[in-house]
Amino acid sequence: MSDRDRAVGIDIGGTKIAIATVSAADGIVREATIPTEVERGFAPGVSRIADAVQRLLAESGWRPREIEGIGIGCAGPVDRARGTILNPHTLPGWENGDIVTPLREAFARPVRLENDADMALLGECHAGAGRGFDPVVMLTFGTGIGGAALVGGEVLRGVSGEHPEIGHVAVDPRGPRCYCGTSGCLESLASGSALSAAAAARGLGDARQLFARARQRDPAAEGILRDALSAVESATGTIVHALLPERLILGGGMMDEHYEMFASAAAAAVARATMAPPGRITVARAALGNRAGVLGAARAAMRPRTEE
Amino acid sequence: MSDRDRAVGIDIGGTKIAIATVSAADGIVREATIPTEVERGFAPGVSRIADAVQRLLAESGWRPREIEGIGIGCAGPVDRARGTILNPHTLPGWENGDIVTPLREAFARPVRLENDADMALLGECHAGAGRGFDPVVMLTFGTGIGGAALVGGEVLRGVSGEHPEIGHVAVDPRGPRCYCGTSGCLESLASGSALSAAAAARGLGDARQLFARARQRDPAAEGILRDALSAVESATGTIVHALLPERLILGGGMMDEHYEMFASAAAAAVARATMAPPGRITVARAALGNRAGVLGAARAAMRPRTEE
Repeated sequence: MSDRDRAVGIDIGGTKIAIATVSAADGIVREATIPTEVERGFAPGVSRIADAVQRLLAESGWRPREIEGIGIGCAGPVDRARGTILNPHTLPGWENGDIVTPLREAFARPVRLENDADMALLGECHAGAGRGFDPVVMLTFGTGIGGAALVGGEVLRGVSGEHPEIGHVAVDPRGPRCYCGTSGCLESLASGSALSAAAAARGLGDARQLFARARQRDPAAEGILRDALSAVESATGTIVHALLPERLILGGGMMDEHYEMFASAAAAAVARATMAPPGRITVARAALGNRAGVLGAARAAMRPRTEE
Repeated sequence: MSDRDRAVGIDIGGTKIAIATVSAADGIVREATIPTEVERGFAPGVSRIADAVQRLLAESGWRPREIEGIGIGCAGPVDRARGTILNPHTLPGWENGDIVTPLREAFARPVRLENDADMALLGECHAGAGRGFDPVVMLTFGTGIGGAALVGGEVLRGVSGEHPEIGHVAVDPRGPRCYCGTSGCLESLASGSALSAAAAARGLGDARQLFARARQRDPAAEGILRDALSAVESATGTIVHALLPERLILGGGMMDEHYEMFASAAAAAVARATMAPPGRITVARAALGNRAGVLGAARAAMRPRTEE
């Protein structure tokens, strides 16, 4: 097996960091999760990441020079060219931190920094629910709603190579004002934090309690959920018209328990889309869970091969 | 000059067909416009197109074998693989007509059939308002609203290589039901026919009269127009979040007189988009008018060259 078949994938989120050694043939070889502990500062965080990479390489029986590189997916936005983290919301105090240079110096291998939603998409497209499909759009429902797309075998990128925020497509101009600048975008209506805010405003607790109450047919809870599912349906219609994906993947923590109702809303929009080729667009649940990010990040660090 | 530098471009619309001989170096060499006269039937229409191509080649001093091929942009949807027209709305009676085979047999050159919005985009990207930008999104305001995008130097295509209908992104769930399956899509709120319908419902005449009355500060006319411009603003926000273009081009008949107000609405959405890189997204008027289609179609028929 050549070096090109091995890489390290890192997935940096606001609360934890997943790290794995990955081989193209076998998938994840060794993996670890460490707390982000963003409040302890950026430099100590990078040190703990480097230590974990070192340990996983040793456990895998790989020397640093036997890997093709290190790929990092980080809660966006990130500056891919400069290798710096730009996210003041999820990673306060880490913004403008250059994570690429110290890891490159520590392991003497190429290091790539990418948006985490793009890397999760890449993971699903190589080894999960997106495999064999193109275009693919993935929406990740958590605190926010992440979005990413694969088009023509490549991660969809916008101006300056930046990551389009598909989770913020407009849904309802009368909806809540979002930090993205749009009123009534998908994230402002159907994310975990949107559901928690709507539930709290009605004295219904948080998102988790909202789902429980809706299961018990509480009309107020059902109403909030119905609005969120309408937003998913409308956003899916927009995604179908803007990108015409062959597959729409729904992932993220909220899909562990609530996939069916969200998938039904998305499928309803697909069925209504008269200008899309009938029967050609499918909706699927993300298959790799938390591992999509490290798998995609490792894949991004492997050189493309002509046989692929 | 090699054969690769010459092609014929054809742009088929519901009322007229534009045809041109095009050289990569000089642009349009000779051009003609013939009435579509769709009611006279498909086969006579193809004959008249072939006659016009023949005449323009002769006027250009080119033999058929000196051109690289013939590119056709046709009011969508089209079946690119089968070379057939699928549009029963704009081209009734021509649907399922194979336009590629007879022209290929007549001129013994490759013939490509594409969506007309994609070809107009390609024309603008090679020789107009999209030149040097990537990604580019173009919206064409006419009876309907056409949309197309260039991403990574390629026309954005969806599942099965089909054309995404960006003009139908969702804007307002309380808006009119559109034939696309969405209620309140951009086309249903801001196209020429949408404005005419809204004006007629208020006894204000058609879209042209609506604009005239709004200029005279008629409050009802101003209200309809304000709603349409809000729809453009909202759809632009969605386009920014879904595709993050470097340039948004506004074209089509309505932009001849009304570009400034539509561009202002689009620019307002760009300015509000906090997650997009500041100052990197520009809005521009289409530069080639009706010629974008033939130029793009001819360009699609030329082989890509490595120096490009």
